[in-house]
This record gives sequence, C-alpha cells and structure tokens, in this order.
Amino acid sequence: MPMSSIGQSLRRIIVGERLPTSRALHERLPKILALPTFAADAISSSAYATEEILLVLVVAGAGGLRYTTSVALAIALLFTIVALSYRQTVMAYPLGGGAYTVARENLGLFPGLIAASALLTDYVLTVAVSIASGVAAVISAAPVLGEYRVELCVAFIAFITITNLRGTRESGRLFAGPTYLYVGVMLLMLVVAAMRDALSHGAAAAAPRYVQPEQALTIFLLLRAFASGCAALTGIEAIANSVPSFRPPESRNAAVTLLWMLAICVILNLGAAAFSQLYHIVPDQSHQETVLSQLGRTVFGRGTLYYILQAATAIILTLAATTSFAGFPRLASILAQDRLAPRQLASVGDRLVFSNGILLLGTASAVLIVAFKGMTHALIPLYAVGVFISFTLSQAGMVRHWQKLRTGGWRVSATINAVGAVVTGIVVLVVGGAKFLHGAWITLLLIPVLMVVFLKIHQHYRTLAAALTMEGYEIPRGVRHAVLVLVPGVQRGVVSAVLYARSIAPDCEAVFVEIDPAETPTVQEQWYRYRMGCPLTVLKSPWRSLVGPLIDYIRTVRAERHVDLVTVVIPEFATTRWWHGLLHNQSGLMLKLALMSEPGVVVTNVRYHVSD
Amino acid sequence: MPMSSIGQSLRRIIVGERLPTSRALHERLPKILALPTFAADAISSSAYATEEILLVLVVAGAGGLRYTTSVALAIALLFTIVALSYRQTVMAYPLGGGAYTVARENLGLFPGLIAASALLTDYVLTVAVSIASGVAAVISAAPVLGEYRVELCVAFIAFITITNLRGTRESGRLFAGPTYLYVGVMLLMLVVAAMRDALSHGAAAAAPRYVQPEQALTIFLLLRAFASGCAALTGIEAIANSVPSFRPPESRNAAVTLLWMLAICVILNLGAAAFSQLYHIVPDQSHQETVLSQLGRTVFGRGTLYYILQAATAIILTLAATTSFAGFPRLASILAQDRLAPRQLASVGDRLVFSNGILLLGTASAVLIVAFKGMTHALIPLYAVGVFISFTLSQAGMVRHWQKLRTGGWRVSATINAVGAVVTGIVVLVVGGAKFLHGAWITLLLIPVLMVVFLKIHQHYRTLAAALTMEGYEIPRGVRHAVLVLVPGVQRGVVSAVLYARSIAPDCEAVFVEIDPAETPTVQEQWYRYRMGCPLTVLKSPWRSLVGPLIDYIRTVRAERHVDLVTVVIPEFATTRWWHGLLHNQSGLMLKLALMSEPGVVVTNVRYHVSD
Repeated sequence: MPMSSIGQSLRRIIVGERLPTSRALHERLPKILALPTFAADAISSSAYATEEILLVLVVAGAGGLRYTTSVALAIALLFTIVALSYRQTVMAYPLGGGAYTVARENLGLFPGLIAASALLTDYVLTVAVSIASGVAAVISAAPVLGEYRVELCVAFIAFITITNLRGTRESGRLFAGPTYLYVGVMLLMLVVAAMRDALSHGAAAAAPRYVQPEQALTIFLLLRAFASGCAALTGIEAIANSVPSFRPPESRNAAVTLLWMLAICVILNLGAAAFSQLYHIVPDQSHQETVLSQLGRTVFGRGTLYYILQAATAIILTLAATTSFAGFPRLASILAQDRLAPRQLASVGDRLVFSNGILLLGTASAVLIVAFKGMTHALIPLYAVGVFISFTLSQAGMVRHWQKLRTGGWRVSATINAVGAVVTGIVVLVVGGAKFLHGAWITLLLIPVLMVVFLKIHQHYRTLAAALTMEGYEIPRGVRHAVLVLVPGVQRGVVSAVLYARSIAPDCEAVFVEIDPAETPTVQEQWYRYRMGCPLTVLKSPWRSLVGPLIDYIRTVRAERHVDLVTVVIPEFATTRWWHGLLHNQSGLMLKLALMSEPGVVVTNVRYHVSD
Repeated sequence: MPMSSIGQSLRRIIVGERLPTSRALHERLPKILALPTFAADAISSSAYATEEILLVLVVAGAGGLRYTTSVALAIALLFTIVALSYRQTVMAYPLGGGAYTVARENLGLFPGLIAASALLTDYVLTVAVSIASGVAAVISAAPVLGEYRVELCVAFIAFITITNLRGTRESGRLFAGPTYLYVGVMLLMLVVAAMRDALSHGAAAAAPRYVQPEQALTIFLLLRAFASGCAALTGIEAIANSVPSFRPPESRNAAVTLLWMLAICVILNLGAAAFSQLYHIVPDQSHQETVLSQLGRTVFGRGTLYYILQAATAIILTLAATTSFAGFPRLASILAQDRLAPRQLASVGDRLVFSNGILLLGTASAVLIVAFKGMTHALIPLYAVGVFISFTLSQAGMVRHWQKLRTGGWRVSATINAVGAVVTGIVVLVVGGAKFLHGAWITLLLIPVLMVVFLKIHQHYRTLAAALTMEGYEIPRGVRHAVLVLVPGVQRGVVSAVLYARSIAPDCEAVFVEIDPAETPTVQEQWYRYRMGCPLTVLKSPWRSLVGPLIDYIRTVRAERHVDLVTVVIPEFATTRWWHGLLHNQSGLMLKLALMSEPGVVVTNVRYHVSD
C-alpha cells in the first residue's frame, strides 16, 4: 500500500510520532502549562471587558462613567462567585464537571443537553471570533494582507488545529509564552500606574473631559453595562471541564489553577476599570483605538512597553481559541460516551487527544469564517448568551447537588451557587433581550436544533443496543448455509475460489451469469474439461446485468433449499500497479454494494495474487 | 437502497428504458438512417472543402482560380478511389473493417496501432472542432451568447452524448432530418444554377473580377490546394468501421450506403467547385463570408432558400460530431476485444450501445474544448493528418489483402488500393509538412504516446492471462484454512458471526483487539458468561490501532499453524437509515482496505440486520 504509507508518513510529520496509551499520564499538564491552556480565553477577556462597560456608560456622559469601577466591582464579585462555584464543582467532579455533566446529573437530561448545546455552539463561535479578531489585528498592521483575510483565517485555524492534534502538552508549551507575557505586561502597567498615582498624590490624573450625555443614567443602563462587562466571564468554565487533563491529584491542581485564574482575571479587570476611570478615559465610539490601548499609552507613553502590550494583546486574543480546542473535544467525547454524539468523538487519536473533536471544531469554525467572509465581529454578541445559559444551568445543578448531598456546610455552598445561578440567569435575560435581534436569536435557535440531533442520535444508539443486547437472546444452535461461487470465466483465480468454497461447504455450486450468450458454450466446455470440482449453473441475463440475475437466484436458493444464509464467494485478482484497476470491470465492487442490502447473504472475497 | 434507485430512475429518464440483448438486431439501422448517421461528417465536409481549395489558389490570382474545377475533379477522383477501396473493405470485412482492423490483419500490430491512434485522436478532434464551429455559427447569429461559448459547447456535447447513449436508432432518427435537408437544399442550388446557366447560354455568369496574384502558379501550389481540399474526405471511413450496425445483409447494405455517400459527396463537392469558378467567386480572406454563402446568395438571392441553406449548413456542421460518436466507441470496443484498451470499452450498455466509449469521447472532447476555451479552429489542420495516415495504412493493408487472397480480378482491386495508398500517402506528406508547425506535430506526437499506452495495456492483459491460464496448471487438492472472528464486543451481531465461523470451520477462534485496556475484563467475562462457543484471544494494542495487531496475529497464525489461508470473519450490522453510518466507526471498511493487500487472507462480512 504505497499510497497509504505516504499518507502515514505525512501524518507523522504533521501531528508527530504516535504515542502509546501508557504515555497518557505523561501527557497530563502541570499547573504552569494548564493555566495558559485553559485560562487563555478568560484572561484574554480582560483585553476588552472594560471597554464593553465604558461603551454603555458613556451614553450617560461623565456622570455615567463615574460608575465604571462600581460596575467592574460587581462583575469581579460575580466572577468570584462563579469561580468559587466552579471550584466546588472541580472538587465534586474529579472526572470533569462541565456545565453539561453537572446539569445532567442534578437537573436531568434536558437541562444537560441545553447546557451542552450552548457550550458547543460557544466553542465554535469563540474560535471563529477570536481567530477573526487576531487576523483583523494583523491586517490593521499590514493592510496589504486585506485581500487574503479569509485565507489567513483558515490558515490560522489550520495551524491551531494541527498544534492541538499534536497533543495537549505541546500546545500548552506553545501557548504559555504569550499568555504569561500578556499577564506580565498588564500587571506591570497596573503597578506603574499605581506607583505614579501614589507618588503624585492623585495629581497624575488628567482633568475630566466633558462628555455630552445622550441619556439619563438609569438602573437599566447600569444593568446593561454590567451585562456587557460580563464578557469578562467567557472561558471561565474551561478548567472545570478539563480536570482529567491535570496531573494527579487532578481536582486539587485544577482548583488551585482556577484560583490563580480568578486572581489574575479579577486584578486585570478591576485594575483596568479603576485606572480607566481615574484617567478619565473615554471609549472611542468610532473604534479607532481601544480603551486598553489608551490606558497603555497614558501609563507607558508611546514606548517599547506600549508596543509589547499591543502585540501581546493581539496574540492572546488569537490564542483564546486554544481554550475552545481544549474544551470542545472533551465535551464532545463526554457526549459520545453518553451516546448522545457519534462515538468516533470519544476515540483517542495517535497523540492521545480526541483528534476527531479537534478536527470537527476546526472544520466548523473554518466553515463559519468562510461563510461570514472573515467578518465575524457580528458574532460576538451571540456567544455571551450561550455562556451564561450554561453557567446558570451548571450552578442551578450545583444547588441541587448540595441539597441532595447535605454534607457539612452545604447551606453556604448552596447559597453561593444559588446567588450565582440567579445572577447569571438575570444576565441571560438581559443579554438575550438586549441582543436578541442582533443575533442572539441564532444561538437560541441553534440550541434546540442541536438538542434534537443529540436526542435522535441517542435514540439510534439505544435502539441498536436493545437490538444487539445479549440479555434474553436465545443463541441459535447453528446456521445452515449454501455456497455459491461466482464464475467470470475459467482461470486460476476461480480455482482458488472453488477450492475455498469446497473447504467451507462440500456441496458448493458455481454460478455463471451469461452476459454474452456467445461465451457460454466455451465456459461450460472448459469448466468440465478442467474438472473444476463443482457443478456450474448458467444464469440468463437478458438485460446484461450481473447483479440482477444473481440476486434473483440467491432468493430462489434461500427459499427452496431452506437455508439461513447464502455465501457468495467472489474471486478477485490482486495486481501490483494501481492503474491496473482501471483495466478491469469493477464488477466485484458493484456486486458487493448490491449484496450489502440483501438479507441473508455473506460475501466472501478470495483474492488471487498476480505478480507482474 | 433509495439513493441508488433514484440514480436508476434518473438514468432511465436520461438514456431511456434499458433494452434486452434480443433487441440488438432491432436496433440495427436501415440504410435510410445509416446514411445520415455515418455520412454526416463526410457530407458536411462539402460545406468547406471548396473554400479550402479557393483559399490556396487565390494566392496565384485569377490565373490560379481557373484551376478550381480541375483540383476539385482530382479530389473527386481521389474520393472515388478511396470510397471504392472502402467498398471492397466493407465486402471483405463484414464485422467492420476500419483502418485498424485492415492494417492490423494485413500489415501487423504496429501499423494497426498507428491507424487506431490516428483515428481515435481524429474522432476526439472532430467532435471538439465541429461542436466549436456549430457554436461559433450560433454566436455569430446571437452575439449576446458570446460570454457562454464554453458552456454552450459543453452543453452541445452533453446533448450529443446523451442522444448517442439512448441508442443508435434514436440518434439516427434525430440526425436524419438536418442531413437530408442540407443535401436537398445543396442539390436544389446546383440544379437552379445549372438551369440558369443553360437558359442564359453562359451569360448568367458575372464578369471575372481582377484578383492580384501574390505568387506564381506552381505545381507545389496546386498540390497544396489539392491537399487542403482533401478535407472533403474526412469521415469517409465511418461506414466501413460500422458495418455491424447495418441491418442484414450488413455488407451489402453498407456497400450500397457507401456508394450513395460517394455520389452525394462527389456531386456536392464538384458542383460547388464548378459553380464557384463559373461565378468567379473569390474567397473572403478576412473570413467574413464563406464561399458557400456567396454561392448560395448568387444562385438563390437573399431569400428564404438562402437562409435555409445557411441554417442547414450550421446544423450539419454540428452534427458531424455524430459520425465520431458512432466511430469512436466501435473502434474502442474492437481495441478492447483485442486487449489493447480497457475492457470496459467493449461492454454493451443499457441501450445496446458501447456506453463507456461514448462517455469517454464526450468527456475527452469536452476537456479539449474547455482547455482551448471553445476556440478550437486552430485544431482543424491537426486532424486531416491523422485521417490520411489511417487511409494510407488501410489501403496499403488492402493491397496486402489482395496479394494474399489472389481471388479473381485481384490485380485490379490491388491496383485501385495501391493508387489510393500512394495518393493518400502523398497527401499525408504534403499536409503534415505544410501544417507541421501549425499543430500537426501534436497529432504526430500523440500517436506514439497512444501506441505506448495500448502496448502497456496489452502487456498487462497478456501477463494476466498467462498468470491465470488453466493450461499447465496443477489444480491443488485443497486448502487448509484457519478462521478468526473479529470481536468488537459481546452482542447479537457477533453471535451470528461466530455461528457462521463455526459452520465453516469447527475450530474457529475469536479475536478481541484491546484498544482500551479497561474494557477487556468486561468483554472476557461476558464472552464466557454467554457461552459464545469458541475461545477468545485478546490482542494488545499499545498504539490503539485495530489493524496493526490483527495483521501481526494473522501472520503468526499462518506461519505457526501451516495454513494456506486465514479467513477473517468481520461482524457488521446493517441499519436502515443512511446517516446511521456516520454514527459508527467505519473500522470494518478500514480493516478491509488494510487486509486487501495482505496475501493469504480471505475477508468475510457477516451482516446482522437491525430494523429501526
């Protein structure tokens, strides 16, 4: 098989040498690599969450912007509640406690499927949006590449897909640098800002600019600002989903990593919001410059550090897709193990990752990007809805969990989760309501569609399992079968087939389908001259079809001889060059396809190897 | 199989109900339909042959044009010689006496292959050129269609291909009308011209126009004019190739039709040349108006008859492709029967035609048209070379034929053929030489390439026949084989497979490839709990591959147990909906592909039908 071994070699080069199952534990991530792998999405949110808040508040003018830090504090509180809730989940579900698992176990199949559908949709959207944003940043820097937007997006997706196919550890290593660089330069910015403020006793801050208010400041506006800022929470669930990817003790390591993520995200988000308010930064409603860029410019000046900040931001936004590449295949594999998704999604590939899920995510997001021509900014509002639906279900599930378990201090835990569930539930309503016409309806439509698909698949697997179960199955005592050898002519390949047929049933029968009546006498004469060893039946074929008369004869044999099975032995010869296949009627293949749907037929190929 | 029955219905609608072999004689063509089918190409040549002569002679001015009728007479003589020679061939070869058959039988394999390669190339070129000319005529009338030139060409080819797939009789019927219309209106034109000339005693002719001579009139110029006019002979061989398509007595009917074709072609070509000279028609070297159009306008005036002539000309030029669609598949089938071409080309399709050859010709000419963007006029010089090469070889072959037979009057026959061979041989040299740089080199390059392909194919079939022949083959007494049942888990489908395996060999063995070591104990426990009836071997698979460990084990079994064959029984379950296939690992298929190239392995699928 030279073609397939070329394919093998290519696969080795692209995804690397295959790994034995025994290496699985080795591929687990230490905390230092798990943090960038699973938290890149959540951490990268700090690059735009403050801006989302400011863009709502600025509508109420300077009076509105005064509430920036308060709203950010509320979000930080929400972040803390959700993170602490997930910390409890991580400890309670050491095999991975994504929203699907928690909701399904505690609330039932339907809520579980809603959470799963919402999450899968979000993962695909996250990849598409974050790759498109990353490419947009590249194109802003190098406008000549603008013509190749879609091609660049697809190339980026291919790159991330391949990196993830190479295995969790290798992708963790690759993504660690940029994530830590971003966190480092952000923290440095906050420290510099704080020091400057402390040294100048507040005089460093610029005078507030006058901003024309367009609306009065209302509770609803503050709620919307809060809802927009909740984009900071996207990606928070990744660690809980991925507990089994951590080195043992998995739960403890995951919980520690989760707290690290919480600390980083709260500090970055809160710091960015507070200093934005302090420096009276006004969001640029024409999207020329981001809030983070304005903040960085104010703190660092237009120096090297400012450019490092911008570069790190662009890279981490692209890498946010990594988190989805860790989350999607794992969730898909859990669904597959629960027989809700095609079982191929549960099989472990050459490099001990769920290769099929990775490929599916890469393909789906590439299709989305091609369909939207790389302009996926419109999709950003879509994906917060799904995230918060899954948060709500997950935390509601945890409330039930505590109610069922009633371990020590369960009331406190249940209260934390209940508060989280109520707050995230409100966020779902606010975001879903405010953005319904802007595209949230797509997510809200896609969720029931995916649920129906999952349930159909589940039904199929259940029906199949019931049809195949050994429970209550009376094993038949034996099968009676007749053997037919299909004869294309008298030659050595047929001898092998007849010998084989005689070895499995002494009373076999040869069958010749007469396409051209002129050939029949020769075949019959040769058949008996060479003593082929079993009787030859000639089937007429007025329409020159091989399949039709054979199937008719098989049905006759089954009916008249009362056999359970008819074995059709098809002689084939195997040649050494690929183009030889073009020189022969592929009637064997056609026949196999036709006999596939015929009940009570067993097809056996006896190959005669011809060396050339 | 709902998908394949949709395909079947579609095929019925497009190519019509399939015909039984017994209808073959019915599908034969009566002479009245055979003439348009096989002579359309030759007859259509009269639409441009005179112009080809005039375009050469005009170089020598009015003095040159004076030789038009003489050159046309020479060509008519050549036409008569070639046609009479082919008449002898038709009588001598009732099973079809194309250039290939005659050259191969009388001159040997190589000359035969040269003729076959030349003819096949010409058939493809004829289709491409005539369809492109027809479309060019349509576009001249409706320039808005100019944008869709290639699409129109491909659509025309598809139409002609489908018409031919429907069967010879139906295409004959369809093409009869336009051919007879063209012949009728051409004859009418000649009669009107002759009557007008007779009534006016020659005064009807216009005064000769003065044409500036560019060159002196030389023998070489006259030879070139003769060579160009020889385009009138293309398609003359079609009847000889297609004797078996005639109603019995095939040879006599074909010979009569050939003489009819000869008469029509000689009258039309000679008449057109004579009246062109009489009316002093000067070819339009800017290709604005054809010579035939000028002649028609002079005789009929710009009336209805003139437009009928133009329309009939356009249609018959398009239909010239029909002749190729009759000739190519028949020649290809003869080559296939002689094991020089893939044998699929010899099989008779649903409508008793050589469907594969028709499809191959349609595809090849469509590819040519797409590659040349529908501008295939440049190909016209190419194809006369091939035609005359095959004429020369065919007639040379006939000379040998008479020399071998020495029947009564063989000297006369041999002389006719010898003259034909020499004259057409000269034409090959003249056309090939004059047009070598204009594209004839492509044909002259393609012929040896095709010959090598034919010989390679021939070698393969010969090697295979030698490897498969029963001559000198000691039939082995029997085969010893071991049977392995591949077990994916314990379920009813596997029970069927084990029962089957036990029915063909009492000592079969079940094999379980351990992808996930955690599953093994369950499988082993269930295997013995349900008393599956044969021992279970577990094969370790550290790389999670199904195929690798199985092939290793098969090799071990073959080596250690001294068996000739190992039968691998693969249980499969058949479901009722197509999408169910997506929900299962297609490992059975992968396995079959992998085992295909493993010697000494017989693969048997036992299907368990699950109703849903």
